[in-house]
Amino acid sequence: MRARDLAVAYESVTVDSDALEAARLLAEHRLPGLLVLAGPGEPRAILPASQMIKTLVPAYVLEDPALAAVVDEQHADRLCEALAGRRVGDCLPADAGPPPVADADDTVLEVATLMARVRSPLVAVTGGGEAGGALLGVITASRLLDALLPRG
Amino acid sequence: MRARDLAVAYESVTVDSDALEAARLLAEHRLPGLLVLAGPGEPRAILPASQMIKTLVPAYVLEDPALAAVVDEQHADRLCEALAGRRVGDCLPADAGPPPVADADDTVLEVATLMARVRSPLVAVTGGGEAGGALLGVITASRLLDALLPRG
Repeated sequence: MRARDLAVAYESVTVDSDALEAARLLAEHRLPGLLVLAGPGEPRAILPASQMIKTLVPAYVLEDPALAAVVDEQHADRLCEALAGRRVGDCLPADAGPPPVADADDTVLEVATLMARVRSPLVAVTGGGEAGGALLGVITASRLLDALLPRG
Repeated sequence: MRARDLAVAYESVTVDSDALEAARLLAEHRLPGLLVLAGPGEPRAILPASQMIKTLVPAYVLEDPALAAVVDEQHADRLCEALAGRRVGDCLPADAGPPPVADADDTVLEVATLMARVRSPLVAVTGGGEAGGALLGVITASRLLDALLPRG
């Protein structure tokens, strides 16, 4: 079994996607994160749902969390206005690096080792050989566990 | 809207649960992680699926990842034997702290601020007042986003 056999499609957006639409995607599908592409098939980053939450919290509250208790609920209802006109790329942390990338021909242990070392919840799989560097899909940690567990 | 209105049940195990059963729970429900309890209603840690993967990878491979490519597949098939007889507590990283905990009466913005500051994919909610310190459930980042997004 190789990485290509475990890779599945995953919800993805591009750095130029509308940030509000990306938030809806996370919310509606109850996703822990999205795969962000720089261009077709080019993994750029993982955008965790918690990072999207961070984008919504006003800077003055992040600096002084005690203020969160005194902001009235009407204001809280409008937090998502912070996303209007913004792109997904604007929501990524400054230090967001590319997600770990496995080659289609990597073994299950190679994928597991990569995931364990960077503590990433998912690994992108790009095609070696005839597929060039194209994105084949992702492998989540739970999918990999499923492949490693004995049957029955 | 308060934290108590958003808290939902979440798959949880205790530090004394069987590690192999916990891995099965992650795999079968395709969960990004489990809530680990120290005792009834007492949040101890979050166990990410990627950490469970890390438990399976032999120490000598983590130290020298190039070895992952040369371990044969029969060996890889037996990686889960590393979990036999182990408890969930044995799989937690040494530095695993308790998950962030919100009070049932916290506002949505307070929960969002807590989640944003610690970059946690979920927040445990324990009951204030009549419920004492009992665990009411968890709020995931995507659930919180759903609550914050404008309707329609």
